[in-house]
Amino acid sequence: MATGLPKSVRIREVGPRDGFQNEPEVIPTEEKVRLIGMLGDAGLRRIEVTSFVRPDVIPQLADGAEVLTRFEPRKEVAYSVLIPNRKGLDNALAMRDRFQEANFFLSASETHNRKNVNRSIAESLADLEGTIGAARKAGLRCEGAISTSFGCPYEGEVPPDGVFDIGEKLAGFGCEEIAFGDTTGMANPRQVGEFFAGARRRLGGVELTAHFHNTRGQGLANVLAALERGIDSFESSFGELGGCPVPPGSTGNIATEDLVSMLEEMGVSTGVDLPKLIAASAEAQKALGRPLGAHVLTAGPVDWRSSAAG
Amino acid sequence: MATGLPKSVRIREVGPRDGFQNEPEVIPTEEKVRLIGMLGDAGLRRIEVTSFVRPDVIPQLADGAEVLTRFEPRKEVAYSVLIPNRKGLDNALAMRDRFQEANFFLSASETHNRKNVNRSIAESLADLEGTIGAARKAGLRCEGAISTSFGCPYEGEVPPDGVFDIGEKLAGFGCEEIAFGDTTGMANPRQVGEFFAGARRRLGGVELTAHFHNTRGQGLANVLAALERGIDSFESSFGELGGCPVPPGSTGNIATEDLVSMLEEMGVSTGVDLPKLIAASAEAQKALGRPLGAHVLTAGPVDWRSSAAG
Repeated sequence: MATGLPKSVRIREVGPRDGFQNEPEVIPTEEKVRLIGMLGDAGLRRIEVTSFVRPDVIPQLADGAEVLTRFEPRKEVAYSVLIPNRKGLDNALAMRDRFQEANFFLSASETHNRKNVNRSIAESLADLEGTIGAARKAGLRCEGAISTSFGCPYEGEVPPDGVFDIGEKLAGFGCEEIAFGDTTGMANPRQVGEFFAGARRRLGGVELTAHFHNTRGQGLANVLAALERGIDSFESSFGELGGCPVPPGSTGNIATEDLVSMLEEMGVSTGVDLPKLIAASAEAQKALGRPLGAHVLTAGPVDWRSSAAG
Repeated sequence: MATGLPKSVRIREVGPRDGFQNEPEVIPTEEKVRLIGMLGDAGLRRIEVTSFVRPDVIPQLADGAEVLTRFEPRKEVAYSVLIPNRKGLDNALAMRDRFQEANFFLSASETHNRKNVNRSIAESLADLEGTIGAARKAGLRCEGAISTSFGCPYEGEVPPDGVFDIGEKLAGFGCEEIAFGDTTGMANPRQVGEFFAGARRRLGGVELTAHFHNTRGQGLANVLAALERGIDSFESSFGELGGCPVPPGSTGNIATEDLVSMLEEMGVSTGVDLPKLIAASAEAQKALGRPLGAHVLTAGPVDWRSSAAG
């Protein structure tokens, strides 16, 4: 097992968008900008900074343009913006020089897609074709994210071949990266292993990214299963910020510090400075005024090398 | 990977001892007895019911004899008792017909062993030899549990060969099962895979049990790594009850419902009825008056087969 693992991975930090989005209290823009700076300083090289959605739908991200204007970009970091539709892209392109990547999304389940964006999958794809094409023309690197790739809370099982069909279309529209989301934490490690073996056969030409949730405590086990299939690109949220309204009270994204801790302890390089990352989560915890769920935020790094030396 | 996994596993529920022990408020004996009944009813076939420790050291388990007298045993369940020393064994043997297994423990790290039981490892082993021998004579099946098998918060790295040396001694004393504890959650999946490959070489004749903590969120990833090495015996705590005082605020044992959910979803049989197990944790949550950490307790089972049918 160990010999086959990737030597290093890429991590996209999605906390400033996916995480903040689920916070009921609006976080001051200044605080968001400061935390984005800390995340870049911790060594994260891919950061999703905001989304251009309708402010009445997600008030928390109504300051998307302001965040994009005010944060201090680092040359070595690829900043990305979630784009819900053509209008969102046009608004984002007004600040084209402030980000490098655009993330587009739809669901692999008809019911989930309709509940989320009030469209059929076919309608979403038709719109995405033009929008992704325009983003590519503007020189943006494009990621296509497929929600409910491992199961849908409304429909149940989601056949992988249907997910790969959607992935192929997104790749055909110009996406260089496809992310598969376990939106409500239904994936198990055996399924993940089989899924990514299939994904690599069907989607050999694009970067394959795993986006796991920890809803049922299996997030890092699923990361291990993906890693064992050669997957080396992951998305996570610092502090375990974020969640999903289904089922109520559930946790959402896997925590970046837990992911980094596990990978680094395994000898898989992440490029992230764990103490600096934990400091960023501690600041977020302070700003939100409630304990966040990340385990390593509470327990600290394993740190046995230093304790063995001491 | 999938083809090599065990088809079924044995789970020892340690909540009534390891879990309750860490609760500051003493739980009424009646409540403990009722929960032990629910756990057996949920299909758990190994349950650690209490410990015979000094009541002034752990007041929560001062009712060990009463629990043993009052709980209603099921024929198909092996009940076990944690035995700290010869005096504890003698006390437990007064109720010999109420349990089938005795669990003995020491640490693989000198410092941890001294802080925990105020003895050197050699002193602990010398005492265990006679105590385990006496337990065997009384017809008890014996488990030897080795704490800090994957790292020590005081000493750092714990060499696996030293752990296996201790395991061999315990097996020589008469233990049919050796459990390896990740006492403060320092293990990572790569280490776990290598550890159990070595354990199987060195300790081929005894049952090897993995006892993981979720201190850094890696508990189920470590289960997966052990499973991939053919390990099919695990210990866990319902509701994620229990913990460890180091580091402060950390979670402890992996949650039985999270373990069962992952394994059953992977097609690895546990014999446990997940809704009944969740009901037991919900009762414990009510009795303790605080939310417990188990993810599946909050999120519910994946249940996609029923939702796919509905």
